[in-house]
Amino acid sequence: MGDESGIGPEIILKALCSNEIPKNIEFKLVGSEKNLHDTYEHLRSLGLESLANPKNLKIHDLEVSSTNNNSKSSYGDSSFQYLKKAIEIVKQYPDSALVTGPICKKSWSLAGHDFTGQTEVLAKSCGVKNVGMLFTAKSPITGWRFNTLLATTHIALCEVSKKLNTELIHSKLDLFKDFCNTYNDKPTLKVAGLNPHAGEEGILGHEEKDWLNDALITWSKKNRNIKLLGPLSPDSCWNSSVKAWSDKNAEKHDGILAMYHDQGLIPMKVIALNYSVNTTIGLPFIRTSPDHGTGFDIAGKGVAQSQSMIEAIKAAVEITNNSRLLYTH
Amino acid sequence: MGDESGIGPEIILKALCSNEIPKNIEFKLVGSEKNLHDTYEHLRSLGLESLANPKNLKIHDLEVSSTNNNSKSSYGDSSFQYLKKAIEIVKQYPDSALVTGPICKKSWSLAGHDFTGQTEVLAKSCGVKNVGMLFTAKSPITGWRFNTLLATTHIALCEVSKKLNTELIHSKLDLFKDFCNTYNDKPTLKVAGLNPHAGEEGILGHEEKDWLNDALITWSKKNRNIKLLGPLSPDSCWNSSVKAWSDKNAEKHDGILAMYHDQGLIPMKVIALNYSVNTTIGLPFIRTSPDHGTGFDIAGKGVAQSQSMIEAIKAAVEITNNSRLLYTH
Repeated sequence: MGDESGIGPEIILKALCSNEIPKNIEFKLVGSEKNLHDTYEHLRSLGLESLANPKNLKIHDLEVSSTNNNSKSSYGDSSFQYLKKAIEIVKQYPDSALVTGPICKKSWSLAGHDFTGQTEVLAKSCGVKNVGMLFTAKSPITGWRFNTLLATTHIALCEVSKKLNTELIHSKLDLFKDFCNTYNDKPTLKVAGLNPHAGEEGILGHEEKDWLNDALITWSKKNRNIKLLGPLSPDSCWNSSVKAWSDKNAEKHDGILAMYHDQGLIPMKVIALNYSVNTTIGLPFIRTSPDHGTGFDIAGKGVAQSQSMIEAIKAAVEITNNSRLLYTH
Repeated sequence: MGDESGIGPEIILKALCSNEIPKNIEFKLVGSEKNLHDTYEHLRSLGLESLANPKNLKIHDLEVSSTNNNSKSSYGDSSFQYLKKAIEIVKQYPDSALVTGPICKKSWSLAGHDFTGQTEVLAKSCGVKNVGMLFTAKSPITGWRFNTLLATTHIALCEVSKKLNTELIHSKLDLFKDFCNTYNDKPTLKVAGLNPHAGEEGILGHEEKDWLNDALITWSKKNRNIKLLGPLSPDSCWNSSVKAWSDKNAEKHDGILAMYHDQGLIPMKVIALNYSVNTTIGLPFIRTSPDHGTGFDIAGKGVAQSQSMIEAIKAAVEITNNSRLLYTH
């Protein structure tokens, strides 16, 4: 359910009422039955009609021991417990996938849960080290799937260069290859540089020259069925994605590896808007979530867009049905 | 002319032949007459017809003393000398503006010219400290002008956090305000955060909490006719620009201040593609240039797009004709 003081419950009720959601899927919601019912009644009172009725949904009603005092910390604690329980449930059912609502990291921190995001909790809970934060969107115009994988995720910008190294890039490319191989035997992957103009031969930053160029060459030699391009100038790296998104005849690539959060997320959101889905790859199951935050400023107003949640559910189903991807790590 | 081993001469000949270029403007090209003529003949031999004939252009033919041996360093030296001469000429004529072709920083460096870009040479040549690198594009769909100013420019990513401070942000906002005031008396400016989710209250980076939040508040108090929003989450900061670019009824803002090169340039290029123009603000004259590089990989093939050069010329004329902007610093 994510953080219940945000737009999570609203977009879930809206999404589960949409006719875009695949049939023959069993949904189980993990959260507070009472809160979900309250959200439903509130949204109905605002005049909203296209909502799933909580009465018709299977809810794993979780009582969280922390005081239910509507504080940030209380919502932080409950959203953390919902995630832990949901992971437990998904692990029990081999054909299941997890879709998560948005949470607030600050609220988690206030509640004493020091994780930088849901992805990190998932990796720890599954005992997996090499997971990937992949943003994926299917173009409604061309049907092309636009994929951006992040090499680093929720860290301060000044930490990015220190965190990156050859081993990390290789592990992310391995994950990316496995993901793309479920769609395409000979994928084309692009890698963005770290610095402006990909360092411009060392003038605008040394990482490309020092190790990133070499890292890509050595990985390429071991993975000859992948066409690997990069490191490319970050500011033009996504131009081909714009074209592939909107033009059926444009050249298509299978994915771009971004060096840091905003380098990948800015073009993803600008190009794919509400169609973008956050997917965790490398786990024993598929996990997706909408690519936006809790939207505290618009929570309770009835105006939240549910398209990203709809896409998250559709992507979870589509990817889970593709058995080749599962259990590769 | 920029670097003559790149696509500069080609896009100049294409642009000056376009009927989008305003009439009654006197152009003076600074570069090698011989090289421009050679480019013209070569492109004609490939079958290209929509080209300005160098015979009909005013050319300030500059003989550069470095050996004309077609080396990177030789092209680096000549493109540097063309810029210096062009600045000299523009300074002589009050109503003139400078449009520059793309150069290669590595070639400049090889020729012993240690500047990180043309902007830095311009600032030094004009004895101005506070200049701004502004990217601007006029939407062909809505006529809205999309502006992104960079707080830091051509530096390695790991240097960005060290370079930023309150004084720098205030000086860039001052420049941005003056620019926007030429279009709008009460502009709306947005400021992107530095870190993912604008630091998420200190969890994902400390700069916003330590000083950026306060820097915006103090500037806002001194500039009450500006609606200032930020620091905003970088990955959704440009979503409103996408809408304003393509929808006449969408809410419009006057500009976004980006913290670093790729944060601003990625969304600019994804949204505005070839319409984006690099403008230097804060100089005693207006300088624009296309927002792409030398395109060495496609130079001489006749396939370079001249739209960004056409937009650069149009923007230089439009902004120069607006006298309010000139000599404000």
